[in-house]
Amino acid sequence: MTSDFFAHAARFASNLPAPKARGGGSARYNFGVGHNDPSAVPVAALSAAAAAAITEEGESLAIYNLGGSALGHEKLRRIIADKLNAHRGFALGADEVLITSGSLQGMDLVNALLCDRGDCVIIEQFTYGAAISKARSAGVDAIPAVLDEGGIVIEALRETLERLAAEGRRPKYIYTIPTVQNPTGTIMPLERRKALLALAAEFDVPIYEDECYADLIWSGEAPPALAALSPEQVIHIGSLSKSLAPALRLGYMVAPWQALGQILALKTDAGTGAIEQMTAARYLDGHFDAHVETLTRHLETKLDAMMEAIGREFGTSVEVVRPTGGLFVWMAYPEGIDTAPLVKAAAEEGISVNAGSDWSVDPEHGRRFVRLCFALPSVEDIEAGIAAFAEVSHKVLGMPERSGNMARRGTE
Amino acid sequence: MTSDFFAHAARFASNLPAPKARGGGSARYNFGVGHNDPSAVPVAALSAAAAAAITEEGESLAIYNLGGSALGHEKLRRIIADKLNAHRGFALGADEVLITSGSLQGMDLVNALLCDRGDCVIIEQFTYGAAISKARSAGVDAIPAVLDEGGIVIEALRETLERLAAEGRRPKYIYTIPTVQNPTGTIMPLERRKALLALAAEFDVPIYEDECYADLIWSGEAPPALAALSPEQVIHIGSLSKSLAPALRLGYMVAPWQALGQILALKTDAGTGAIEQMTAARYLDGHFDAHVETLTRHLETKLDAMMEAIGREFGTSVEVVRPTGGLFVWMAYPEGIDTAPLVKAAAEEGISVNAGSDWSVDPEHGRRFVRLCFALPSVEDIEAGIAAFAEVSHKVLGMPERSGNMARRGTE
Repeated sequence: MTSDFFAHAARFASNLPAPKARGGGSARYNFGVGHNDPSAVPVAALSAAAAAAITEEGESLAIYNLGGSALGHEKLRRIIADKLNAHRGFALGADEVLITSGSLQGMDLVNALLCDRGDCVIIEQFTYGAAISKARSAGVDAIPAVLDEGGIVIEALRETLERLAAEGRRPKYIYTIPTVQNPTGTIMPLERRKALLALAAEFDVPIYEDECYADLIWSGEAPPALAALSPEQVIHIGSLSKSLAPALRLGYMVAPWQALGQILALKTDAGTGAIEQMTAARYLDGHFDAHVETLTRHLETKLDAMMEAIGREFGTSVEVVRPTGGLFVWMAYPEGIDTAPLVKAAAEEGISVNAGSDWSVDPEHGRRFVRLCFALPSVEDIEAGIAAFAEVSHKVLGMPERSGNMARRGTE
Repeated sequence: MTSDFFAHAARFASNLPAPKARGGGSARYNFGVGHNDPSAVPVAALSAAAAAAITEEGESLAIYNLGGSALGHEKLRRIIADKLNAHRGFALGADEVLITSGSLQGMDLVNALLCDRGDCVIIEQFTYGAAISKARSAGVDAIPAVLDEGGIVIEALRETLERLAAEGRRPKYIYTIPTVQNPTGTIMPLERRKALLALAAEFDVPIYEDECYADLIWSGEAPPALAALSPEQVIHIGSLSKSLAPALRLGYMVAPWQALGQILALKTDAGTGAIEQMTAARYLDGHFDAHVETLTRHLETKLDAMMEAIGREFGTSVEVVRPTGGLFVWMAYPEGIDTAPLVKAAAEEGISVNAGSDWSVDPEHGRRFVRLCFALPSVEDIEAGIAAFAEVSHKVLGMPERSGNMARRGTE
């Protein structure tokens, strides 16, 4: 037996993604992944919640799904239903919520439920990178929906749906992040939501709504979720990654039973981790709103630091709209700029950011953007990291030309 | 919008499994799923471990994968490597272990890694039901390998491999549970293991080894794992479901890096639940062997109760070989019997057991068997439940004719 038995590609399935390399260091300034704020993790309370939950429910760990429903831990489902009812306009019971192992599992399940290879789907032109990569893995053709500051542009979507209908194609879903859109940070107004629901119904296409960031809004109120406005036509997913912690792999799905019962048959994982579920349920019971309030204050402070640093370091050479929630800003260079070489050079300097093209269904649309996450680094690291990023940007793209009021070397 | 928007099958992907029904009660006597023994869950120690782990590592929950490797929690990987080295003949470092969300996720990943639709694989003729259903979901043709009391019969496997080679087909893997086979409970001897490895190498087919039950052996020693004997040609999966608790969704995989690096690229779930991982690591550190010792004593007591109850209630009408480990017995009715109507009638009486045909690649092979799990019910419920099952069996199949020394009504 040689040591490269598994090195022959013929052994593997076809069309696999590129393998991962061993190890891989972490960035000195990490603006590249939607991590959360370590200082906002309620460590003592979570620790106490875990201890109490296991003391109370620990024997049931011997039984798959704790001897209960395959939908997940009942108390956690009730807490999620309650928070959706209180804040997102729903009227749900606990049995209308499915717990998933992060929203990423929810995304896999939605694709498995709705899509065959060769189908097409509509995805917002700028979107969560995993929504694009998972659609592609499922062999599905992703068609972009044009966005403006209010989200999906209805007239443009109508044109797309009409064109597809003329070609005899019906999209299997319209994927949208209406509330704190990733990466643009916008919130879709109520009238736009109603128009989107009406248009989707007219063309008989389900809406697949992702509200992972909807808990993290620090100013103003968001309109109700699409799934709350029209429960029958929407599959809604969400997560505790953003409102509690991402290393807990806890997400959820709300959908009509015709969809949820079929999803349950596809969720062949014997349930989501029970200690995560019971700990989160115990902690969030009665603490959800207060925790989110504390967390969003932390996040807003970091956003302030990032906006100030961008203004100071980049001046008018880039455009950034201040989001009213979430964990990231979407920074635009002038038309014609390609941020790919900048992102690569920054990585070599220990600065991790997302290339806009990776967050775009059509990479061309996002070529002049970068996404910068601000929840993980400290305020000091945000300031130093954005300054370092501006330095790399100047070297690679020739902009910004100034740092604060100082001309950069070589610029003048 | 009508209330049955999602009721049209055309909306969904083709070839979905049957949807789940709402609710569904639990059986009064549950011998049907490999649950564990509630009284053997170390509740107080797990509770303390969770509290201590979160206190120490809680801030890192804000970061995906706790800021570490996508392979999983480092300490847990080291503990699993240590137990495999100590008990299963390996010589592993922590970086050769991948944590999965239960072994079920590991099974999905192996199929995704190795199989295209239309491929064929070899699976032991009697096997874990999920191995069969997951292969079928992957569009793969499962070909049975004949078993005897030492596991896969080498000569029969050679014939199968030769026949396939003559047809121009190379199986993508040989799936085996060599150590406490599910459902037969047998342990493959060392010489058979060596012969299997040699045969698989000769035909250039990877071995896919499942050792979910290998920790639960109460008499005798098991030979080393196949992956320990020949690391380069085996993908090895295991689980903490059986040695700790199934509602914790913690499994693991050991494979050469050429396979593992590719598996990591397929594991697009952003990691396995971190509180589960840190809690298990904290608890098992230094406690693994003592816990398994306690657990297997509990299990052996329950097995004794089940063997006695089967002997008392069924007499010589069935055959059961006493396993030396695991959570289940494999009970054989005489040739020609079909247990399917018995399993259905038992379910109606609140007694859950597995039909042998569901645990068989070719349902015909398993038609005269039932699988009975003994870890969950108390000794009293085992005694009462087996008596009740014998009563149903008598009604449906006309056997056993006697209960203890007493003839059943209608028999004489």
